[in-house]
Amino acid sequence: MQSENNMAIEDNLDPHDWESMRELGHAMLDDMLDYLQGIRQQPAWQPIPPEAKAHFTSPVPWEAQDPGAIYQEFKRFVMPYPLGNTHPRFWGWLFGTGTVMGMYAEMLAAGMNTNGGDLDNHSAIHVETQVVNWLKEILGFPASASGLLTNGCSASNLNGLAVARFARAPWDLRQEGLQGDHPRLVLYASTEAHSSIRKAVELLGLGSEALRSIEVDAQYRIDLAALEAAIQHDRKDGLQPFCVVGSAGTVNTGAFDDLNALADLCKSQDLWLHVDGAFGAWAVLAPSLSHLASGLERADSLAFDLHKWMYMPYELGCVLVRDEGQHRHAFSYTPPYLAGSHSGRGLTGGDLPWFTDKTYELSRGFRALKAWMSLKEHGLSKYARLIEQNVQQAQYLAELIEADPGLELMAPAPLNVVCFRSVQPGLDEPALELLNQKILLALQEQGIAVLSSTRLAGRFALRVGNTNHRTRRADFDLLVREVKRLGDRLLRDLSD
Amino acid sequence: MQSENNMAIEDNLDPHDWESMRELGHAMLDDMLDYLQGIRQQPAWQPIPPEAKAHFTSPVPWEAQDPGAIYQEFKRFVMPYPLGNTHPRFWGWLFGTGTVMGMYAEMLAAGMNTNGGDLDNHSAIHVETQVVNWLKEILGFPASASGLLTNGCSASNLNGLAVARFARAPWDLRQEGLQGDHPRLVLYASTEAHSSIRKAVELLGLGSEALRSIEVDAQYRIDLAALEAAIQHDRKDGLQPFCVVGSAGTVNTGAFDDLNALADLCKSQDLWLHVDGAFGAWAVLAPSLSHLASGLERADSLAFDLHKWMYMPYELGCVLVRDEGQHRHAFSYTPPYLAGSHSGRGLTGGDLPWFTDKTYELSRGFRALKAWMSLKEHGLSKYARLIEQNVQQAQYLAELIEADPGLELMAPAPLNVVCFRSVQPGLDEPALELLNQKILLALQEQGIAVLSSTRLAGRFALRVGNTNHRTRRADFDLLVREVKRLGDRLLRDLSD
Repeated sequence: MQSENNMAIEDNLDPHDWESMRELGHAMLDDMLDYLQGIRQQPAWQPIPPEAKAHFTSPVPWEAQDPGAIYQEFKRFVMPYPLGNTHPRFWGWLFGTGTVMGMYAEMLAAGMNTNGGDLDNHSAIHVETQVVNWLKEILGFPASASGLLTNGCSASNLNGLAVARFARAPWDLRQEGLQGDHPRLVLYASTEAHSSIRKAVELLGLGSEALRSIEVDAQYRIDLAALEAAIQHDRKDGLQPFCVVGSAGTVNTGAFDDLNALADLCKSQDLWLHVDGAFGAWAVLAPSLSHLASGLERADSLAFDLHKWMYMPYELGCVLVRDEGQHRHAFSYTPPYLAGSHSGRGLTGGDLPWFTDKTYELSRGFRALKAWMSLKEHGLSKYARLIEQNVQQAQYLAELIEADPGLELMAPAPLNVVCFRSVQPGLDEPALELLNQKILLALQEQGIAVLSSTRLAGRFALRVGNTNHRTRRADFDLLVREVKRLGDRLLRDLSD
Repeated sequence: MQSENNMAIEDNLDPHDWESMRELGHAMLDDMLDYLQGIRQQPAWQPIPPEAKAHFTSPVPWEAQDPGAIYQEFKRFVMPYPLGNTHPRFWGWLFGTGTVMGMYAEMLAAGMNTNGGDLDNHSAIHVETQVVNWLKEILGFPASASGLLTNGCSASNLNGLAVARFARAPWDLRQEGLQGDHPRLVLYASTEAHSSIRKAVELLGLGSEALRSIEVDAQYRIDLAALEAAIQHDRKDGLQPFCVVGSAGTVNTGAFDDLNALADLCKSQDLWLHVDGAFGAWAVLAPSLSHLASGLERADSLAFDLHKWMYMPYELGCVLVRDEGQHRHAFSYTPPYLAGSHSGRGLTGGDLPWFTDKTYELSRGFRALKAWMSLKEHGLSKYARLIEQNVQQAQYLAELIEADPGLELMAPAPLNVVCFRSVQPGLDEPALELLNQKILLALQEQGIAVLSSTRLAGRFALRVGNTNHRTRRADFDLLVREVKRLGDRLLRDLSD
C-alpha cells in the first residue's frame, strides 16, 4: 500500500498526454520534410530580424510551457533563420549538407539514448565497430588498425596527434607530461595546414612554437626540400622531431600534399605521419581523383569527417590509427567504478574493445547510427559518384571563370575548392578587395548563394567549397551570372 | 539547354520517392514512441544473441539498399539490444534517461543540420547563447561569465583545465607550451575525483604526476588539511601549484567537497578553482540539497552535464568560465578563411561571440536545441522536483537497506548514489565479493535492473546511481526483494 501511494504521487518527464505529443512529433516530421523537399525555393540565407533576436533574451523558464507552443516558437524564430548549409547554393566553409535518412537516424539514436562509451555488450557498440571497420577498409587501412568516431575533424586531429606524442616520446609521457627534463618535441605541417592542427598542438601543451610551418609550392603543397631541411636543422639544434602532418585537401584550395613522399620521408626519419583529410580523404572513392590521395593509406593516423563530404548530419568525424595498441596506450585508464569488464557476461561482458580506451571522453552518443544507415541507404558507389560530381561541378565553375575576362581564377582547383574574384579594369588591389567583399555580402543578403572568402598570397578571394549533394551545374551558371551582375552594379556604386 | 541537360543527369542524396520516405519516417516515429511509452514492460537489459552480433560483420555496402529494409534491420538487430538507460530500473554509471521532446529536438536539429561553430548570424547561435545565459543564472555565475555547450563533462573538464593552465602559467603557454624552462605546474584533486580529470591532465601534457591525489575524510570529501599541506610542500619544492579541482557529487558515492572552503583556500593561495559537477551541480535546483553545492558559484570554472541529471539525450555537457576574456584567450585563433566577421552584415556579421573561440573544435552541431526545448517544456521547477525526487528515492533505498540485516550500506548516501551489498553470515570478504558480483550479473541478465559496481576501501559494492526520471519508489522495493532472492539462491549455489 505504501508503495502504491508513492507510485501515485511520483512524477516523471514522459508526456502527460502521449497522443497529443505523438501528433506533435508527426507534425514536426512533416514540416521538416516539406522544408527539405522545398529547399530550392528557399533563400540560401536570410538575416535574423531584430524581433527574432530579441526573442532569445527571455528569462529562464521556471514553469512548464505547452509543447505545441514551444514548437510554434521554433517555427517562428529558429527554423526560418538557419545557417543555410542544406541549400543547393551553399558553398561556404566546406560545410555538409545533411540527408533525410541522416535526420531519421538522429531521431532513432536519441530515442534509444544510448551511451556508446565504456560498456560493450549492447548494439550501439557493434554498429560503431562495424562502421569503423568499413572505414578502415574504404581508406586502405589494415583490419588490425584502430578507429574511433568523433565529433569532427578537430577532435580527430587532436586524437591522432595525442597518440603520436605518446607513441614517439622516448619517456612515459602520460606520467611525466612535457614537464620533465627532455628534449623539446617538434612537429611539421605546411603553411596551408588547417588551424585545428595549431589548436591541437597548443592544447596538447606542445606550444605553437613546436609546430614548424613549412612553405608550400605553387600548387599549395608542402615543400619537401624545405621540410627535410627544417627537420635536419631542428635535430642539429637538439630538438626532437616526432611527427609530420600532411594535408589531404587543404581548406583554402583543396591541395593535396605529396603523401607518398611524406610517408617515405617519415619512414626514413622515423617520424609519425598524421594526415588531415577532413574532406579530401574522400577523394579515394572516386576513380578519377584517387591518385591525389595516394599515400593516405600509409599514414600512422588519419583524421577525416563524415559530416562534410559524406554529407551526413553534424557531428560526425573519425580518426584511424594504424597501431591499435598505441591508440589504446595513449588513452586507456579504467577507474574502479568501470572495472570488471570482459567477463563474457552482463552489460560489460562483451568482447569488443571499449571506445573510451581510445579517447579522453567517457560519455559518447550513438553517432554511429547515421553513418551505418546512410552507408547502407546509398551504397559507397553512389557516394563515389557524388564526390566525382562535386569535383566535376567545381571544374565546370573553374572553366566558366577562366572563360570570362571579368573573373579571375586565383589558385589551381584540383578538387572541389574554387577561389576566384571579380576583376574590373582600372581597379587597384584595395578597390578589388572592397568590390569582392561587397559581392560576397550581396550574394548572401539577397539569398542567392553562400560563399566564403580567404586570402591567397595576401589577396582577397571568393571561395567556393563544393561538398553539396544538392548542387547542380545550373547553380554555378547562376552564380557566375549573379557575381557579374553584382560586380557591375557595385562598381557603379563605388564610382558614384 | 546545356544546363538543362546537366540538371537532368545530376543526382543527389534526397529521396527518390519522397512519399514512401515520409511514410517510413512516420513509422519510425510511431515505433519509437510505442517503445518509450511501453518501456516499463521491456527488460532492463538483455544480451545480444550471436546471430545479431554476426549481422554486424557484413562487408562494406557498395550498392544502395531499400530504406525500408534498412529500418527492418535496425528493428531486428539494433533496437532490441540497447544499453537500457531509458528503462525505469536502470541505475548504472549515472547515465541519463532521455525524453520524447529531447528526441524531437534532435530530429529537428539534424534536419536543419546547422553548424554552430564560427558563424554567428543564424538562429542556432542565439539559441545556444540563450541556453548558456540561462545556465549561468541557474548556477549562480555572473552575467559577464562565459560558457560553452560541450559533448559531455569530460570535454568540459578538459576545457576548464585548459583555461586554468593558460590563465595561471606566468608565461605564454599557448606559444611555449610546457616545454620551456619553467617551474613545473601541479594541481590537486581528491582520490575520489573523476577519472576524466586525470585523462584531461594527461592530454594537456601536464603528466599524471602533476595531479596530486589528496586523501578524503569519512564522508569521502577532500581532506582540507592534507590539501593545504600538499600545496605548501610543492611550493617548497619549487613547483608551481595552479589549480584545485573540487568535486560536486563524486561518481563513487555522490560526495561533495566543501566548496566554500576550497574557494577560500584558492583565493588565499592564488589558485584556480575548477569544480567538476558532472551530475551533482544540479543539487543547486533542489531547496533541500542546495546547501551541498554551496560555493559552486565561486568556482573559476565549472563543468557539468545535461545528459545525466537533467535527463536530456546524449551528448550534452557545459562548461562555465567566470572570466570571459580568459576563456577566449585560451582558445581563440582565427585563420584567414574565417576572418571578416563582426562587420554587422552577412552570415559572419552577427554581434555574438563565436563559440569556436572558446574551444579547440570548429564544427559544432545544434546540440543547444534539445536544452532550449526541454527547459521550456518542463520548466526549471519541475527539474527541481524530479532531482529532489531522485534523492528522496535514493534515501528510501538507503533506509530499506539499513532496515534489512541481509544488506549492508557501504558509504554515506548524501545524494543519489547508494553503495551497498548483500551480506550473508559466515562468508568471508572474497566470498562476499563473489556473491555480489553474481547478484549484479543476475540482475542484468534476468532483465530486472541494471546496477553498476565499485570498490570502497577495497571492498566490492553494488552501486545505484539514480538519475532516472522514470524510477518510482516501488522499483526500489522490487530491487531489494530481488537482491535478497538472488542472494539466497546464489548462496545455495555457492554452497553446493
